[in-house]
Amino acid sequence: MPKTVSAAESLMKVLADTGISVCFTNPGTTEIHLVAALETETRIKGVLCLFEGVCSGAADGFARMTGRPAATLLHLGPGLANAMANLHNARRARSPVVNLVGDHPAAHRRNDPPLASDIATLARPVSAWVSEATDAAGLPAECLAAVRAALSPPGQVATLIIPTDCAWGNAEAPAVDWQPPEIPPASDSTVATAAGMLRADVPTALMIGGKALQQEGLRHAARIAARTGATLLAPTFDARFQRGAGIPMVRRLPYFPERVQKRLAGFGQLILVGVPAPTAFFAYPDRSTDLLPPGCRVAALAAPEEDGTASLAALADALGAGGATPAEAPPLSRPELPEGPLSAETIGVAIGALLPEGAIVSDESGTSGEFAYRATGGTPPHDWLCLTGGSIGQGIPLATGAALACPDRPVICLQGDGGAMYTLQALWTQAREQLNITTVIFSNRKYQILEVELWRLGFKTPGARTTDLMRLGRPEPDWVQLSQGMGVPAVRVETTAAFITQFNKALAEPGPHLIEAVI
Amino acid sequence: MPKTVSAAESLMKVLADTGISVCFTNPGTTEIHLVAALETETRIKGVLCLFEGVCSGAADGFARMTGRPAATLLHLGPGLANAMANLHNARRARSPVVNLVGDHPAAHRRNDPPLASDIATLARPVSAWVSEATDAAGLPAECLAAVRAALSPPGQVATLIIPTDCAWGNAEAPAVDWQPPEIPPASDSTVATAAGMLRADVPTALMIGGKALQQEGLRHAARIAARTGATLLAPTFDARFQRGAGIPMVRRLPYFPERVQKRLAGFGQLILVGVPAPTAFFAYPDRSTDLLPPGCRVAALAAPEEDGTASLAALADALGAGGATPAEAPPLSRPELPEGPLSAETIGVAIGALLPEGAIVSDESGTSGEFAYRATGGTPPHDWLCLTGGSIGQGIPLATGAALACPDRPVICLQGDGGAMYTLQALWTQAREQLNITTVIFSNRKYQILEVELWRLGFKTPGARTTDLMRLGRPEPDWVQLSQGMGVPAVRVETTAAFITQFNKALAEPGPHLIEAVI
Repeated sequence: MPKTVSAAESLMKVLADTGISVCFTNPGTTEIHLVAALETETRIKGVLCLFEGVCSGAADGFARMTGRPAATLLHLGPGLANAMANLHNARRARSPVVNLVGDHPAAHRRNDPPLASDIATLARPVSAWVSEATDAAGLPAECLAAVRAALSPPGQVATLIIPTDCAWGNAEAPAVDWQPPEIPPASDSTVATAAGMLRADVPTALMIGGKALQQEGLRHAARIAARTGATLLAPTFDARFQRGAGIPMVRRLPYFPERVQKRLAGFGQLILVGVPAPTAFFAYPDRSTDLLPPGCRVAALAAPEEDGTASLAALADALGAGGATPAEAPPLSRPELPEGPLSAETIGVAIGALLPEGAIVSDESGTSGEFAYRATGGTPPHDWLCLTGGSIGQGIPLATGAALACPDRPVICLQGDGGAMYTLQALWTQAREQLNITTVIFSNRKYQILEVELWRLGFKTPGARTTDLMRLGRPEPDWVQLSQGMGVPAVRVETTAAFITQFNKALAEPGPHLIEAVI
Repeated sequence: MPKTVSAAESLMKVLADTGISVCFTNPGTTEIHLVAALETETRIKGVLCLFEGVCSGAADGFARMTGRPAATLLHLGPGLANAMANLHNARRARSPVVNLVGDHPAAHRRNDPPLASDIATLARPVSAWVSEATDAAGLPAECLAAVRAALSPPGQVATLIIPTDCAWGNAEAPAVDWQPPEIPPASDSTVATAAGMLRADVPTALMIGGKALQQEGLRHAARIAARTGATLLAPTFDARFQRGAGIPMVRRLPYFPERVQKRLAGFGQLILVGVPAPTAFFAYPDRSTDLLPPGCRVAALAAPEEDGTASLAALADALGAGGATPAEAPPLSRPELPEGPLSAETIGVAIGALLPEGAIVSDESGTSGEFAYRATGGTPPHDWLCLTGGSIGQGIPLATGAALACPDRPVICLQGDGGAMYTLQALWTQAREQLNITTVIFSNRKYQILEVELWRLGFKTPGARTTDLMRLGRPEPDWVQLSQGMGVPAVRVETTAAFITQFNKALAEPGPHLIEAVI
């Protein structure tokens, strides 16, 4: 008699057959059969996270670095809700993510037990695909559909709700001949239109996003720029910028809308590659959120779900652009090691002086991080991952997932203290998995962006009751204790020299480290 | 010329006029006008929380202790999402909560900026009432409607979405003559039906929940029990049990369904007071989730939205029950101080020996807490608050809100380490507000309930890959450092004697304390 296979086991086999190799989880009673199925499906590594926002942020980081989805395994509606803020960021990063959410059997849900809620409705705002398994026999196929949905270009969040009786029932795994969905390039006519625009005597910018921000796409973009004089721009925040010495540069748009308007002024044409037209982060009284200059013609070379890299290649060829490395690629250059009092600027310059080749930077530094970005433009090639959806609490989990995706690469997490507090539990997973991550906490004990925005909104002399709600200084969180409490060695630095010493030390030693930089 | 009043200021005035006195917040750019409006509306205390799950859990705790809603002020969809797990618990506790969620102006939302999402859809699974302001002039009235919805019996989560242009526009506050919604008692015929059931010669239980679990309701229930021999039962978890010496006892149902079935066996009639019929927490293969014995007649004396206390009084009167304190009320009695190795049991007994009069216990102790509950039945009167929705991460925030509601009462938080990790940021708010809270962390370094459930589900010898996903022991979180990092003094205890010493010390000193009890 053949061994009976549970649907949970078959689901895990299907996941592994599609190439999913990691499952970030904080399971509960409704997920136990799925956890137990990981016992024998050794192609998938189960990674325990002590809060679901860590699971989703790590899945996002894993996807940004591999192009492949990770799975999350979450406990009913509340588990999904806890994951949701970082799923929002993942959605904005167009990261493929497969959420597996346990639920009560449909029959028991009718009893309205305490943990029941409307999971499908909850899932929809962050998920491009939501489905609920209805029986054990269909579960493996549903799982396959979820992975396919996650990988539908440009990458999506897919949520599969799994009533426990579907998981504990029996189902053979189907044979899986896995082919990820294809990503179409731009049509010939679209390329021809863009080429025509670039041949016209009109100041033109290419706004490049998504996977076209990796080396190959940037090289084609630089060929186009060299041939036509077009300016290469990118969104303020995108999922992953490949950059550094020898990689053509793009200029990210500024954060505040009036600065974007200034940057875009004078362009008569904007060609979009893998991104929608730029939009302001926030609206303000008596200010327009129209970022484009009047009369600017906007056309898409590639929609987000199309292959921006191949489209840029086709466009460069259509323009007869050459193949030589263009002038846009910066030569290797590092700033000198900084001196003077510790500040966001000296930290940024120090990172520019020391960033190792192949580093992955998870940047949720808020108001403190622009110095580091500027100082690293000519350092050896590296990846820069941004806060795509604006929901703070991404940085540490994202770094965790990126480090699991790329265990041989150093990961640097530049993290504001406000956002760090949201998902500090990710440090524990870094300790458990002994990941090579150096977290720099910009410890200014405030939500500084709010103080800036308060001023911009006309509250020039805010009262104490207002500023008290924007400051973390009473009491000051002690990041050394918080980090050590999670199992990650930590130090506090108050001078630039100490930062340099500790940053070097953290990079040299294996495993995670945290530096609280008091600025 | 009269001073121009912003709609944000008028909103805060309306909130204060309805008696709202606290606003738990982690604001962002879209909430700045509302934060600034708290500057002058000094009847409302703004309380900063470093994660939105703290805001919602604290609002729940505040509501359980006062019967009045607190406001939360949250940053768009992600802020609401972070609050949602504890809003789920608040919904199950039938706590009134008013969520104020900032959003982009409708015109800017059409640009799909990074932080935009479908907030109304997100809000629905946890909110009985969701509305979105459409202009500044209407905002104060919308706010009034939100408070009214929150206080609609039995208490609800109400979510008001506030596009920033509605907040920054101008609107005079209306004159508010605030009357909270009335809570209807049971009809005479319903009371008569219940009285008839209780007069029949059939074993009958009263299942009592909601506000009827406070002293007055319990006294009427005990009159009924004394008159008719009915058994007084309560849900496994409810929002707030008033209990202790001199207060009539109810027996909470056990957690596992087979034990509930055993407890209910033999009852021919079940009368519901303020609660739906009991339901199992989870479903299991080959087990029924039907908890009631076959043929048991179920009738509601009072629906959750009716006044259970008044209904019990009417029923007692209809039965001609006397007014004397009945035998069900336990006399004052405390266990002896325990000896022996530290365990969940010795901790529980020690709490029974030491619990101060008027204490509020926030209980998210999971598998460790039943001993404390049992040991405190005869201690001086106190309140016991349960994990109503099963979503872990409630305990520390709930204690925070309860302490703000009742600054003169000692608050004890009994907290499993797994759930503590979810919302440990609440400790920081306890430190900032110098709240009299003693948190006891049951530090067993595992999700013990999952190991129990694994065994119950037939995985008698789980492999290492499975159990590794249910254990926090690699590395062991250091709760002393985590707590001190948040500004709350902490100690670790490993003996019963040390626990007793430190528990007494924490109660004697003002401000928050944390005890990590390694069991």
